[in-house]
Amino acid sequence: MKEFQLIEKYFKPLTNSCKASQNLADDVAKISLKKDEELIISKDVFVEDVHFLRADGGFKIASKLLRTNLSDLASSGATPLHYMLGFSKNDHTDEKFLREFSRGLKSVQDQFELCLIGGDTIKSEKLFFSVTIFGIAKKGKILSRNQAQEGDLIFVSGTIGDAFLGRCFDRLSMTSAKILQERHFFPTPRINLGKKLLEKKLSRCAIDVSDGLIADLNHICAASKLAAEIHLNSVPISAAAQKFLQKNSQIKITDLISGGDDYELIFAVNPKNRKKIAALSKSLNLDLTCIGEFKKSSAKKFNVSLYDEKNHKITIKKTGYEH
Amino acid sequence: MKEFQLIEKYFKPLTNSCKASQNLADDVAKISLKKDEELIISKDVFVEDVHFLRADGGFKIASKLLRTNLSDLASSGATPLHYMLGFSKNDHTDEKFLREFSRGLKSVQDQFELCLIGGDTIKSEKLFFSVTIFGIAKKGKILSRNQAQEGDLIFVSGTIGDAFLGRCFDRLSMTSAKILQERHFFPTPRINLGKKLLEKKLSRCAIDVSDGLIADLNHICAASKLAAEIHLNSVPISAAAQKFLQKNSQIKITDLISGGDDYELIFAVNPKNRKKIAALSKSLNLDLTCIGEFKKSSAKKFNVSLYDEKNHKITIKKTGYEH
Repeated sequence: MKEFQLIEKYFKPLTNSCKASQNLADDVAKISLKKDEELIISKDVFVEDVHFLRADGGFKIASKLLRTNLSDLASSGATPLHYMLGFSKNDHTDEKFLREFSRGLKSVQDQFELCLIGGDTIKSEKLFFSVTIFGIAKKGKILSRNQAQEGDLIFVSGTIGDAFLGRCFDRLSMTSAKILQERHFFPTPRINLGKKLLEKKLSRCAIDVSDGLIADLNHICAASKLAAEIHLNSVPISAAAQKFLQKNSQIKITDLISGGDDYELIFAVNPKNRKKIAALSKSLNLDLTCIGEFKKSSAKKFNVSLYDEKNHKITIKKTGYEH
Repeated sequence: MKEFQLIEKYFKPLTNSCKASQNLADDVAKISLKKDEELIISKDVFVEDVHFLRADGGFKIASKLLRTNLSDLASSGATPLHYMLGFSKNDHTDEKFLREFSRGLKSVQDQFELCLIGGDTIKSEKLFFSVTIFGIAKKGKILSRNQAQEGDLIFVSGTIGDAFLGRCFDRLSMTSAKILQERHFFPTPRINLGKKLLEKKLSRCAIDVSDGLIADLNHICAASKLAAEIHLNSVPISAAAQKFLQKNSQIKITDLISGGDDYELIFAVNPKNRKKIAALSKSLNLDLTCIGEFKKSSAKKFNVSLYDEKNHKITIKKTGYEH
């Protein structure tokens, strides 16, 4: 299939005929903004055998690709708008793969209300996909890594470790494993949470958990020049993951908090807003759990300390995915 | 080298500390615009052994990557602003490569006044790089493929075929081959030309020659629903390329016009503006050559017809690079 046919058949329907896409008929896309808005942009690359397996199929690959990119927008509190796609194909890229890939993108687009506005298609032995995603935010109003304050509580959304277990044990057919696999392939970008935290002025500081809970919290610490103390037994673990840990003693909870791929938000909250966070949790129907606190760092070591249920400090070797 | 060290050492200096980059310390970049401006965006992907060889070295690879992306902005008449980089590395990516790659980007940045604002780095066997490039234009004022009018003259900038010869014969050490190789590795995005065509209201329609002169002119024809007639002996060929053709009879001028990689602009001009184009050519110190005319298409066949010096129609098999 030639590039133009491929674009016409599988990608043009994803533009929803939006103006910015120029019908994918030009080399460029164009975006207009209102005066008080800012464009928030993120770019990610996905590579075969690193971020996905060909055997995962087009639907899962495309879904995860777009969902993880949306998570970057979520962590800044932006509203999704458009995306551009770098698409590679090889001799294994058949019609079925294309159909499933396009369907995967469509399902995420529909859920999060954004559309494709351009990109590039090329041929390569190993597959890789690149997404540049665009969101809008009120000028000067975004969540950043460097806005945590001393004394802020550390909150995390949802549960941690499911995707890690889903990735590691994707051949298990237990019911719990199925739930975990879903969490691995179809993470939920916390778009609404990010927006509400800003709107309700409950936080100015967030990051999404891609590398690992500890590793990403370390990023906030470094950017905000603070230390963090978290309590291992406060970290929210799903029922499915707990069941899994009970049956598989070789996996520890410390593996979950460094496993990554959760795409939950870690965010900083002034203690006076604790009740409002509880109310937000209820209205979003999403667990928001306090796992610790940001502290002043006297030693200029800006990182996370982890404590067990007896308040003993725990040392872990691996904090997250190493790039 | 870890991702953060790599970013700190080689990519952060390329941000010129511009606000949009957020110091590369966040997952997102942010762009503000004035009210009457529009953001023009293009995304391209470069793959090892398809678009470049590792042996080309970091400097050439990075230069070409950014120059060809800038050419997309040139074809829309936009002013370059920022870019994001998807960067892959493997076991061959040593300090020398990184240094050269970064130096290659810097040289193009400095010449065209844009800066890096974000991106992603990953590991992969084969190298590939992806650039998303951002330019600004006055709202509603860009050059597009679909704006050619019946009777418009077809102009092309610079010379055609040098890069093709430079690519095919990159082991020749002749002086002329060196010039041709330079044109292959260091194409000149015609940013100023694109901007001036808009500013002086001399054209509303342009495309850059990446696939091939005929192939890209075909894109204009399809988008503008017109036919085009061009004269082979009007196509501007450099002295170096002419010398080359004389000595290598197996290569024909028809190979040059389907070779691609020129990154010159094809643009449509109302005949009444012919003199103004001549003046612009002088002021930019850049050849702008009329090679034919857009015609009405009665048969609904929107493509290019090619004529030789005796005004006989020529048929060529390959119009350009097949994706």
